[in-house]
Amino acid sequence: MIKQAVIMAGGLGSRFGNRTQAMPKGFIEIDGLAMVERSVQKLIAAGIEEIIIGTGHCSEFYDELAKKYPIIKTVRNDNYENTSSMGTLEVCAPLVKESALLLESDLLYDSIGLFVLQNEERDNVILASGKTNSEDEVYLESDEDGVICNVTKDKASVKNLAGELVGISKVTKSFLNKMVAYYDKTRAENAKIDYETVFCRIAQDKEGGEPIFIRKIEYYAWTEIDDEAMLERAKTLIYPRIKENESLRSVRREVLLNPGPSTTTDSVKYAQVVADICPRELEFGKLMEEVATGLTEVCADPKDYISVMFGCSGTGADEAMVSSCVPPDGKLLVVDNGSYGARLAKIASVYGIDMDVFKSSTYEPIDLEELEKQMQSKKYTTFAIVYHETTTGLLNPLEKICPMAKKYGMTTICDIVSAYGGMPIDLGKLGIDFATSTSNKHIGGMAGVGFVVCKRDELLKQKDWPMRNYYLNLYDQYKYFLETKQTRFTPPVQTFYALRQAIIETKVETVEKRFERFTECWEILVKGLKDIGLKMLVKEEFQSHFITAILIPETPKYNFNELHDYARSFGFTIYPGKLGNIDTFRIANMGDIKPEEMTHFICVLRDYMHSIGVC
Amino acid sequence: MIKQAVIMAGGLGSRFGNRTQAMPKGFIEIDGLAMVERSVQKLIAAGIEEIIIGTGHCSEFYDELAKKYPIIKTVRNDNYENTSSMGTLEVCAPLVKESALLLESDLLYDSIGLFVLQNEERDNVILASGKTNSEDEVYLESDEDGVICNVTKDKASVKNLAGELVGISKVTKSFLNKMVAYYDKTRAENAKIDYETVFCRIAQDKEGGEPIFIRKIEYYAWTEIDDEAMLERAKTLIYPRIKENESLRSVRREVLLNPGPSTTTDSVKYAQVVADICPRELEFGKLMEEVATGLTEVCADPKDYISVMFGCSGTGADEAMVSSCVPPDGKLLVVDNGSYGARLAKIASVYGIDMDVFKSSTYEPIDLEELEKQMQSKKYTTFAIVYHETTTGLLNPLEKICPMAKKYGMTTICDIVSAYGGMPIDLGKLGIDFATSTSNKHIGGMAGVGFVVCKRDELLKQKDWPMRNYYLNLYDQYKYFLETKQTRFTPPVQTFYALRQAIIETKVETVEKRFERFTECWEILVKGLKDIGLKMLVKEEFQSHFITAILIPETPKYNFNELHDYARSFGFTIYPGKLGNIDTFRIANMGDIKPEEMTHFICVLRDYMHSIGVC
Repeated sequence: MIKQAVIMAGGLGSRFGNRTQAMPKGFIEIDGLAMVERSVQKLIAAGIEEIIIGTGHCSEFYDELAKKYPIIKTVRNDNYENTSSMGTLEVCAPLVKESALLLESDLLYDSIGLFVLQNEERDNVILASGKTNSEDEVYLESDEDGVICNVTKDKASVKNLAGELVGISKVTKSFLNKMVAYYDKTRAENAKIDYETVFCRIAQDKEGGEPIFIRKIEYYAWTEIDDEAMLERAKTLIYPRIKENESLRSVRREVLLNPGPSTTTDSVKYAQVVADICPRELEFGKLMEEVATGLTEVCADPKDYISVMFGCSGTGADEAMVSSCVPPDGKLLVVDNGSYGARLAKIASVYGIDMDVFKSSTYEPIDLEELEKQMQSKKYTTFAIVYHETTTGLLNPLEKICPMAKKYGMTTICDIVSAYGGMPIDLGKLGIDFATSTSNKHIGGMAGVGFVVCKRDELLKQKDWPMRNYYLNLYDQYKYFLETKQTRFTPPVQTFYALRQAIIETKVETVEKRFERFTECWEILVKGLKDIGLKMLVKEEFQSHFITAILIPETPKYNFNELHDYARSFGFTIYPGKLGNIDTFRIANMGDIKPEEMTHFICVLRDYMHSIGVC
Repeated sequence: MIKQAVIMAGGLGSRFGNRTQAMPKGFIEIDGLAMVERSVQKLIAAGIEEIIIGTGHCSEFYDELAKKYPIIKTVRNDNYENTSSMGTLEVCAPLVKESALLLESDLLYDSIGLFVLQNEERDNVILASGKTNSEDEVYLESDEDGVICNVTKDKASVKNLAGELVGISKVTKSFLNKMVAYYDKTRAENAKIDYETVFCRIAQDKEGGEPIFIRKIEYYAWTEIDDEAMLERAKTLIYPRIKENESLRSVRREVLLNPGPSTTTDSVKYAQVVADICPRELEFGKLMEEVATGLTEVCADPKDYISVMFGCSGTGADEAMVSSCVPPDGKLLVVDNGSYGARLAKIASVYGIDMDVFKSSTYEPIDLEELEKQMQSKKYTTFAIVYHETTTGLLNPLEKICPMAKKYGMTTICDIVSAYGGMPIDLGKLGIDFATSTSNKHIGGMAGVGFVVCKRDELLKQKDWPMRNYYLNLYDQYKYFLETKQTRFTPPVQTFYALRQAIIETKVETVEKRFERFTECWEILVKGLKDIGLKMLVKEEFQSHFITAILIPETPKYNFNELHDYARSFGFTIYPGKLGNIDTFRIANMGDIKPEEMTHFICVLRDYMHSIGVC
């Protein structure tokens, strides 16, 4: 799995004349998006975690782009006017850790090419295409082994034509090192050499070289854009083909307004499509380790916390936490102000854990004084609470509650399932020792992985505690993974690949901006509800912004199923909610939802409500 | 999700002359495969569960094909000489249950078209393409709503060209009914009418009609083949494009010879890529219900047995079974002759279940007399055993053991994880009450779903038993699903879609033929091992044919990691195995493995063994 890409973007783009005097070529727009930004988006969607852009001419444009995409690192080729792509690649090379994709900056291409390279079993591969008739072709010649032996613009000189250079390749770190060493050694005569020519030199160096193969896609939809004529050709001929190809692979958009699983991106969906792998391979172990660290980073400092993952749902993670984190002779205090708090208590009761339940309203804030009184008795070892009650959208003020629990010496275990990844959380600051969540809520992955983010010190205390169950035992799962980089039992392999992609996309957006997006959606929702005249169960100030429980209108004409089916016909899935005698329906802002979609949903909701006489 | 397809294959194919006098047009081969068979394979890969072929001319060819693909149903249009495609569609219509794909039989097409139709939110859709220059174009005209309003070969008569008819469409049952009713009513003047003309009539019938939309793929790679010239064009121009397009989407082949997860097909991998859905939607409930029935059918009669599914691994399913199926005051007898038997005992011990363990050799058959003696004490309520020990490849003779357990009145619970789906099993006949398996072994799905196939009568006895845990409780999971068609907790949604596809592919191959394929692979392996001079841990007669534990050669030069890495470089993943002092490595024949791959692996293994002096 390739994790890094290098974009060589130092060039002057002088064939464009005026247009690129004060702007790099990569920033020329097609269909409203700069070429290089579209390329960045495709690389992210293809599982690339870090993009290194080698800049030069008008480098500030790329530095600005890097602010928008935190996974971009820019590095400037200060000598860009006297060097060529190899000069830019040289300055990027030190940042490359393992294998990487190398791309030119002025490319328009079908993303399938990235999938092909991610899938290639060969280490070093140059993407080539059939005849483009672009009138700026770079021809590749290969030897009998399929290794590149000639790069030229002179077609007549090519004996064994292997295709036309696209400008996307895959190389190992060692290959890249050899390129840089060659360049360094021959700098005097090769100052302005292109990277593709260096490919050829390394591949054909019988002493100490390394082969790089040509992978030809005969009908590949792509183009380089070097001048106005090529730009025009790109817009009219190539871009429509690329757009269609990609749209054929895209998945029908369904917006899930139910409280999880949430709407996912197509790139997370496609991340599941990977070569088969035995999950006990080290390669997969490293992937799980990176995923665990990524999950921890969302809400805690990995120096103090570690994520322990299971193949299960969020409730499975809750059970792992409750059954594992109460000491053998411990006593638990559970706050129950909704279904999920009640569930924590239910789990504890199944295991016969000594427990008191602190009951509180499902839609009004907890009485903190009352709670502290209960805590004061000091008889509890462990305190359990839900951060964000999925039943109602009520957010419990953990910043006030958890310090109280600490004050009375309790270990705090917390279901943060539907808050995690949707808002900035710092477990350390809050004083939470164990927290559960799942792959399929705000983080935006597929259902199947439940996890507990554990304060390491606290987890280690469980070393000699007797197990209350087997599959969901926290310490055993932690210890086995630590020793072997394997889970004890077969993990849901493809769900982990999707989760890896979801983490990348979370890093690209950042949790802070995600919270802003959800809040924007929530504001549209709240305003819309008020306009329609619908009331919410929980006061706005106590709401999470992620889930809103809406009281059903007081008319016998209201029918949840009718509303559900009507909304579904527009691609929106909503979910009912019943709290004792109070009937609601719930709207979640989670996952890959966009503000304009919430606006559209409000129209749909308004239409339905009008149809039953609610205005 | 479309589950059925209809192929209209009644025609004479007379434009081919001699070639199709004694053969239907669909059987003309391209690249060694009949057009219609390739189409059948693509439909199966696209999630189609049943293919109805309307036959006529040389119908026996299709009846023969149906023997090879058990999901094909043929139905003959006896009047094929005096009717056209609509006549053939009419005889197929009664077999169509919900929405279905309709296809012509003489098509060569990129499978992406099926994905596009499966993804379409509109109910009735005709696939169209841009300009083909095939010289046999059927032009489609659409009205301002995108609904078909004209079908013609006369381009000049078309005002609003919407594309060229491909011959693949999606229609609802009600649309199909309307087509048939129209045909029936106008039979006198419309005997030889084409189905596409009837599309148009229904779509434009302002009273009681139903719209059908045109979905154009501008650059679609496809062709109809009506005569020799078109066949030649297909072979040289179209087929290479289709082949390349599909190869770009294919996933690097890795053959997993580890004992699960097993090698999967690309179609199972891609089945995970579906529109987002809330798993509490009825549509998904039905899918899970069908999956459960499909899982049951693999090893038991769904009249008496039911599959209860969890988001977990095979061990999770084992824990669900052990923790749920031993009565509160019960006593368990567990056979331990390998790691998985030991694991059943471990699970029982964690829950403090009263238990005796019957230990037996890990590589020699169980002493049945000794086991019966132990049973005879009659003090056990429950008997637990593993069918196929993954550690060694030893198959326990359940056909002898389970009747003994029944004789002594025990409930039999059995880990059949790595036998299930790989060999014919009949739980009823064997007398097994509960049996566990997982989505990622022989059945060929992705990891993430564990399940227990339960004898319904026995499961119902657990109604009032106290729970030993929560997430993995069998009866609770059963009851909730029965009442709601929902799992209690979020299921791994995409893994269920993959599992559905894996079940379809199991039905297509049949478990019997799968067992033959695995046995063939095993025979190649055993012969190869003997040729190389390697010894197996278990005698051949006691082996499962699925997993073979091979004693490591007696040379200090042997190094498992070296062998592993060497094999991996050829795309084979192998797995170590240690039993006390006995060191082995294990080779599994599971999942989508082909005999020629095992032959290739033997070469790789031989090369390695030669390199360390083992011949």
